[in-house]
Amino acid sequence: MKVLVLGAGQLARMMSLASTHLGIDVLAYDVSSKQVINPVTFEVKHTTLEQEVEQAYAITAEFEHIPEDVLNVCQQSGKFYPGAESISIGGDRSKEKALLDNAKVPCAPYALITEKSAFIEAIEKLGLPLVIKTCQAGYDGKGQWRLKSAEDAEQVWSEMKGFLDTGTEAAPHSIIAEKMIPFDREVSIIGVRDKDGKCKVYPLTENQHTNGVLTLSIAGKEKAAIQAQAEAAFENLASELNYVGVLAIEFFDVDGKLLVNEIAPRVHNSGHWTQQGAHTSQFENHMRAITGLPIGSTQLVRPTAMVNVLGQPSIPQAVLSVADCTSHWYGKEAKPGRKMGHINVSAANLHQLGERLAELAEMLPEEDYPGVSETSHALILN
Amino acid sequence: MKVLVLGAGQLARMMSLASTHLGIDVLAYDVSSKQVINPVTFEVKHTTLEQEVEQAYAITAEFEHIPEDVLNVCQQSGKFYPGAESISIGGDRSKEKALLDNAKVPCAPYALITEKSAFIEAIEKLGLPLVIKTCQAGYDGKGQWRLKSAEDAEQVWSEMKGFLDTGTEAAPHSIIAEKMIPFDREVSIIGVRDKDGKCKVYPLTENQHTNGVLTLSIAGKEKAAIQAQAEAAFENLASELNYVGVLAIEFFDVDGKLLVNEIAPRVHNSGHWTQQGAHTSQFENHMRAITGLPIGSTQLVRPTAMVNVLGQPSIPQAVLSVADCTSHWYGKEAKPGRKMGHINVSAANLHQLGERLAELAEMLPEEDYPGVSETSHALILN
Repeated sequence: MKVLVLGAGQLARMMSLASTHLGIDVLAYDVSSKQVINPVTFEVKHTTLEQEVEQAYAITAEFEHIPEDVLNVCQQSGKFYPGAESISIGGDRSKEKALLDNAKVPCAPYALITEKSAFIEAIEKLGLPLVIKTCQAGYDGKGQWRLKSAEDAEQVWSEMKGFLDTGTEAAPHSIIAEKMIPFDREVSIIGVRDKDGKCKVYPLTENQHTNGVLTLSIAGKEKAAIQAQAEAAFENLASELNYVGVLAIEFFDVDGKLLVNEIAPRVHNSGHWTQQGAHTSQFENHMRAITGLPIGSTQLVRPTAMVNVLGQPSIPQAVLSVADCTSHWYGKEAKPGRKMGHINVSAANLHQLGERLAELAEMLPEEDYPGVSETSHALILN
Repeated sequence: MKVLVLGAGQLARMMSLASTHLGIDVLAYDVSSKQVINPVTFEVKHTTLEQEVEQAYAITAEFEHIPEDVLNVCQQSGKFYPGAESISIGGDRSKEKALLDNAKVPCAPYALITEKSAFIEAIEKLGLPLVIKTCQAGYDGKGQWRLKSAEDAEQVWSEMKGFLDTGTEAAPHSIIAEKMIPFDREVSIIGVRDKDGKCKVYPLTENQHTNGVLTLSIAGKEKAAIQAQAEAAFENLASELNYVGVLAIEFFDVDGKLLVNEIAPRVHNSGHWTQQGAHTSQFENHMRAITGLPIGSTQLVRPTAMVNVLGQPSIPQAVLSVADCTSHWYGKEAKPGRKMGHINVSAANLHQLGERLAELAEMLPEEDYPGVSETSHALILN
């Protein structure tokens, strides 16, 4: 079975590596260079998008910001999962908020802004501070403002207007202002829905971000009540979208109540721990779902932490000497802040996981790998 | 890091899939066609053995029957692991027996035969029945005779002579006669030794053979005393060979005492369960060892069974609906009896593993997948 992935980065690569054993061959379409490549060997195939769409048994995507014409070609094939609608929701916060409202899944109070009067109204209605995010672009903390005091409103507005003005009639730009709610932490749920509507959901993951980018995830420390909230949100949203494949939902945990922060219609960085912590990884389960194979177990096998490798030219080999530690290298050219790889470490229990993270912390400089040391202490003390 | 594997079958393929995430790129040299190929995509590279040996960071092999000239080219590079000597021992039972004697590791009483007088002597000394095996060829039950009564000796000798006569002065042929010892079952140990001589050993695996070919393995049901015997044998043999990489040893279990049946200087079919049952699979650990990376944990994470797929054109998709079940397809053209893939199933305990094998038995016809049903019953009753 051939599967075509839109996007040729590490997610396509890991989908390929996680499904070859099922008899699935993956090619990736790089939407920037318009080239078809093997996402593992990076070899360029001299074929076109249309040829590969024709050949594919199923088509999917590893990111949301895909040109309309590419989405259309894939959608018309009838074998594109989770499909153009779900993907466009992941790439547009205004559509995302509308979905949340329809599915009655809670998020922070928000206002949609396309002109200055709506901005002024949002400040009055929601109150300060506000988090302001572009709807049609921006990821990993880019395209965002924080408005803390009214006197900065003019300055922020001028920057917002710059973004709104770059929209077109066919593709208008909008901005979301959200009430900044003090949250205890960020968590996410990764789940998979098959073509018959059956869902399986992984255990909730606690995520740490640094400068808006995920740096560390831990799975296996959550209580049943909060897991149930996340699963309900997953099932509501996935069924509202008639979703097929892996869907990720990021939440703010506000005193035990989950508010959706963001939806990603794809495998997600906060689910990389599933490669070692679950029997079936998010990558394999996504491929199983979109090709109509039975979806696999999403239960936790062992508590597992994931540490992102950002901008580093390599992963220290010594991390492999820590028990039950695996490094994942994406084979990309190093650039500052770029996601280059990740490290998964598993353990029999949370205390042992803390000890293993403490070993890792000695090998990984705090400035490059923030939070590893602190997290290890917290797990050991608990 | 580039690694070249001699042999381009499923073992090379799984070594590639198990080490890409470590930043290792694998190519395979098909010794029959003399082509360099990617063992995952089967794409032919238009390079020579010598060029790839030059480019490789490390070189290894997926089987033992490799032409002398190829072994020499690799050995001379100084980066060939486990190296020509270990590989030749795996391909020659007379060398294997000499190694066992040197390392003081027990095996069944045997005699080396190169002429008729030695054959007659062996019958007298060892007694009947005898298992007679060619030393320089034969695998999966091929190249073997069983001598049960003295009156068949002439007939068997004429066939043995046929093999002995095909030897040359440079590469003489020989035959081993072994006393046929009634054994309770066959087990094997897979272990890994790094460049510093540090060993890690997986839990003992119980193996079932049908017509001389492995059909089913189970890991996670052995007692400490028998594990200790197998580990001692591994460490003696691996250190005697100054071995680097994964080494497999097959044993007969004779009333709790292990006698070596065969040694394989490579990853081994009876270790395929490690893909799902251990944190670091035999494939990843072999690649870690030969590239000088720290070797990973060999502890059992969960009891796991492996079922071989022999000669079938595909694996029934329904097996993926059994909890914690994974199929591994090698992408080869189907031929009767050919190893086409395998199925791994894991569980929290042996009873649950039995239940899951019972589910599999309903999907897998007994004639194509012998032993699955019987093994499931035995595990459930225990």
